[in-house]
Amino acid sequence: MKNLKTHSYKIKRIDFEKRNKHRGIAIWLVGLSGSGKSTLANGLHAKLFENGLQSVVLDGDNTRLGINKDLGFSDEDRNENIRRVAEISKLFIETGHIVINAFISPFEINRIEAKKIISDKDFVEVYINSSITTCENRDVKGLYKKARSGEIKDFTGVSSPFEKPINPDISIDTENLSIEESIDYVFHELKSKL
Amino acid sequence: MKNLKTHSYKIKRIDFEKRNKHRGIAIWLVGLSGSGKSTLANGLHAKLFENGLQSVVLDGDNTRLGINKDLGFSDEDRNENIRRVAEISKLFIETGHIVINAFISPFEINRIEAKKIISDKDFVEVYINSSITTCENRDVKGLYKKARSGEIKDFTGVSSPFEKPINPDISIDTENLSIEESIDYVFHELKSKL
Repeated sequence: MKNLKTHSYKIKRIDFEKRNKHRGIAIWLVGLSGSGKSTLANGLHAKLFENGLQSVVLDGDNTRLGINKDLGFSDEDRNENIRRVAEISKLFIETGHIVINAFISPFEINRIEAKKIISDKDFVEVYINSSITTCENRDVKGLYKKARSGEIKDFTGVSSPFEKPINPDISIDTENLSIEESIDYVFHELKSKL
Repeated sequence: MKNLKTHSYKIKRIDFEKRNKHRGIAIWLVGLSGSGKSTLANGLHAKLFENGLQSVVLDGDNTRLGINKDLGFSDEDRNENIRRVAEISKLFIETGHIVINAFISPFEINRIEAKKIISDKDFVEVYINSSITTCENRDVKGLYKKARSGEIKDFTGVSSPFEKPINPDISIDTENLSIEESIDYVFHELKSKL
């Protein structure tokens, strides 16, 4: 190609953010299976969309059968799962998106790693505070039953540990808030950070 | 959370596409090191941005030091590199983006795999047709020199094969087109597919 190095054309993060009228950021939802992460993520996403903001949800549905389909649920694979998701979040943040991550992410070390990859200033940890008893009693997908019977191995809260977030930026009291209230609460908290 | 399954909130690809006023699609640039892939990718990206379209560039710069930093340049690692990039493209397509991929992607089998992951209808293969002699004479980053001396191993066109695209959707004649002309040409061809 002629004149190969004439121009530097790069569109940068700041250009996307100016156009979107908000900054890029990652919302990292942490909670047990059945705590309502996906429901909250999709509800928040819809609210952001309706308000004209740029957002995306990353969850098991769109990663476990895709980019992470080579990974299982061993500690090592959980590490790699979260690492990749954090890197993908970064790509979306670089294009000015609000990235809503809905993964159990049970280990503090992985959340620290994710925060490091994404950067402190772009990482908002949201703890969906729902007890194992509540989640297990609810057992929407029948997964706890399968975990108790041993049919599913390395299941968080049953046969694999869940480390509660030590100092989350936002904490959701799921025992007392409805979905709508939880979404509104996170949306409100988030707006002050955009 | 109360009423956990009351609503299905999912914002779908079609919602993004309606808002963006164009569909999501992947532009897959294929060409030797030094053929101008990155320059073309960033120039096209800027043109799309200036025209109000949603786009993103995926290239070595934002993947090799991030999501793919655990991968080298062996055949196996090149496979995994392209697989992951295709999966990430899909995530961006699902949010209505035009994804511009700028990777050497030297093996036909990987491009077929990428097309399979992304889907036929969302995949536009663009061949940056520049001869090894031209790229090597140019040698902007001094990589060919290092490859010839053996300092870099598995270098495409020197010590690792490059399989030309058999039937690309768009072919760029880099010997006779300037960057601006190449960008305009791809932009024009792309518009009919959006």
